[in-house]
Amino acid sequence: MNPNDLQPSAPWRLAARTRTMNPSAIREILKITERPGILNFAGGLPSPETFPVSAMREACAAVLAEGSPIARPALQYAASEGLAELRAWVAAQMARQGAQVSPDQVLVTTGSQQGLDLVAKVLIDEGAPLLVEAPTYLGALQAFAPMQPRVQDVAGDDNGVQPEALRTQLQGMPVPPRFMYLLPNFQNPTGRTMPEARREAVLAVCRAEGLPIVEDNPYGELWFDAPPPAPLLARWPEGVIYLGSFSKILAPGLRMGYVIAPPALYPKLLQAKQAADLHSPGFNQRVVAEVIRDGFLERHVPTIRALYKSQRDAMLDALARHMAGLDVTWTRPAGGMFVWLRLPPGLDAKALLPQAVEAGMAYVPGAPFYAHEPDPRTLRLSFVTPTAAQIEQGMALLGRVVRQAVSASKSP
Amino acid sequence: MNPNDLQPSAPWRLAARTRTMNPSAIREILKITERPGILNFAGGLPSPETFPVSAMREACAAVLAEGSPIARPALQYAASEGLAELRAWVAAQMARQGAQVSPDQVLVTTGSQQGLDLVAKVLIDEGAPLLVEAPTYLGALQAFAPMQPRVQDVAGDDNGVQPEALRTQLQGMPVPPRFMYLLPNFQNPTGRTMPEARREAVLAVCRAEGLPIVEDNPYGELWFDAPPPAPLLARWPEGVIYLGSFSKILAPGLRMGYVIAPPALYPKLLQAKQAADLHSPGFNQRVVAEVIRDGFLERHVPTIRALYKSQRDAMLDALARHMAGLDVTWTRPAGGMFVWLRLPPGLDAKALLPQAVEAGMAYVPGAPFYAHEPDPRTLRLSFVTPTAAQIEQGMALLGRVVRQAVSASKSP
Repeated sequence: MNPNDLQPSAPWRLAARTRTMNPSAIREILKITERPGILNFAGGLPSPETFPVSAMREACAAVLAEGSPIARPALQYAASEGLAELRAWVAAQMARQGAQVSPDQVLVTTGSQQGLDLVAKVLIDEGAPLLVEAPTYLGALQAFAPMQPRVQDVAGDDNGVQPEALRTQLQGMPVPPRFMYLLPNFQNPTGRTMPEARREAVLAVCRAEGLPIVEDNPYGELWFDAPPPAPLLARWPEGVIYLGSFSKILAPGLRMGYVIAPPALYPKLLQAKQAADLHSPGFNQRVVAEVIRDGFLERHVPTIRALYKSQRDAMLDALARHMAGLDVTWTRPAGGMFVWLRLPPGLDAKALLPQAVEAGMAYVPGAPFYAHEPDPRTLRLSFVTPTAAQIEQGMALLGRVVRQAVSASKSP
Repeated sequence: MNPNDLQPSAPWRLAARTRTMNPSAIREILKITERPGILNFAGGLPSPETFPVSAMREACAAVLAEGSPIARPALQYAASEGLAELRAWVAAQMARQGAQVSPDQVLVTTGSQQGLDLVAKVLIDEGAPLLVEAPTYLGALQAFAPMQPRVQDVAGDDNGVQPEALRTQLQGMPVPPRFMYLLPNFQNPTGRTMPEARREAVLAVCRAEGLPIVEDNPYGELWFDAPPPAPLLARWPEGVIYLGSFSKILAPGLRMGYVIAPPALYPKLLQAKQAADLHSPGFNQRVVAEVIRDGFLERHVPTIRALYKSQRDAMLDALARHMAGLDVTWTRPAGGMFVWLRLPPGLDAKALLPQAVEAGMAYVPGAPFYAHEPDPRTLRLSFVTPTAAQIEQGMALLGRVVRQAVSASKSP
């Protein structure tokens, strides 16, 4: 615990929290998988085919048009809260999902990742416990880490966090957790969704035990057959901070997200936002407002859903055929971008990756998504960027690699 | 010190660091000054006339053109380090100023404000001392505050920090400061610049005492007659973190800045960046790269310099006339955006503000810019947004208000 251990070179001295900051394991893995010619299921990127390039082009041209009254305001410093028009749009969207929030509760952020950073600064003291799903979104673990919480897993199943396990865990904790971080819809990495009854059961425990929730919903709009149940925010407005994003329905390169916070918490999140980057780019906010103004998303998002659904179908179909006879299980996501797969007993997804890459395909091993005790048999497959033909080919390669590994593990 | 004091409402509990986070005093003051019809010298905004709207429009159109190979990459997730082309541009710019840095040392940030946030996370432990100028940039104090440093002022004069005072102060400190935060060029709020000899003298002390420097340079390109001396980074590459910005030379609404860090510190700053917002908007980075590619700034920045210089001249001229016979002093900035003015003994800039607003003009009182013991007689005047005629009128009003206050303070 000698801070000098961390001294990178005179005269600098690193803060103790930098010990808990680490390079993204996934980032390192992605480097392996980025060989040319590899069928890559490892990424977490939306399909660039879905980016509305022409709508963006028209919106930029409109915002910056000669004589446009918003051209110079779009390029000037702006309010830390975000553009009023966008905040009102978010509140109206939430109302459609059953959550009554005021635009005053909406804080525009630089991607929803920044929402996690602000939440961490405002709610996490060093050593304070907080709860996460096992597995959970790796970027959230990274955003929380600098504030040095004690992160604990909550037991879950295919429907999300288990309410009885949660209750027992909470009752055994001497210090109450600051919050529980949940992705109820098409979770990254598992693709799982909390059904209606599970939402109510988990919320009943949280209300009874006084455990607030940070609800992260980047994928909720990407449903395939039916919208997911109403957000947790709609059910417990004073106990939920909600994070939303334009990254999966418009484009991540805009870095546009938002936080919806109970009024009592909003001022501190706003102060943290102001200190962090003054405000999110006003230009991007004006352009997004211009793109979405006339109901563009109501026409655009269904095209993303249709594309991703057909690719999910291709993946589930290919897995059923190529994993036949193997002791492999996988999730059947009702939306989002990911399938979560579990290899046969005795196999290790990280150890197997080089063989998969050698064969011509890549995935992300599941271990980095666990705050503790990873399940080494798990891996994540993205179905949104490859074509159906590539999915077929990639799953065939994965099936062959798994089959070889199984027989190798059985031979003496 | 009971954290429950801070509990805003069940079930949330705020982190202790939120006690050191406060609404911007200036933000509150700006609300007073934003009455219609007020001649406003309070803002810290660049002149919107200088924003290159048509160049931005063309750049957006080029990036998003039909068939553009960079349209979809501009809208996709991107590397946390930033766009290679921009990082190389920054390195080349610094080389022209005598600082040899590798593009690998450049981290693109969401405005240079984010650079301050990342520096705070990586270098400040709770209770660790750090040094700032008195007065200094308020936004830096806000960015550092969540990491709970003990901020100390360093004595300065019209040429910046005083080297001998700095040496004495350092030798009396039981714990060495993590860094000293300096704005050597056209400082916000004072407009002062460190001359060549002062830079060398301060650096000699810093090297001898092992005190690293965070050098913030948002205004350096806005010189009026001659460029400022070479940056501190050029003189002590391993002991300086440098922050730069596109806000004052292109437009702040893009939120584009950068950090240049010694190689030993870069990885931790990069990890903090990744956790904070994954990356700065790739779209904005592509657009800025497109705007600046053909030497645009070499034609554009001189027009900003010329405009601001003529307005500085108007303000200095108006002050000389309207403060004649009053015991008022002010700085004569050689660049940047601000004049710093000191009222006659016995007057208080904050107390006087309502009278100034009543008379029809507004400034920012100086007190919020001090980490400790403000000089209540000081105030900041921006000369970049009003016209020369408005400057004349505003300084006349200020002169009258000061004159009235002086005679009121002398009457029994």
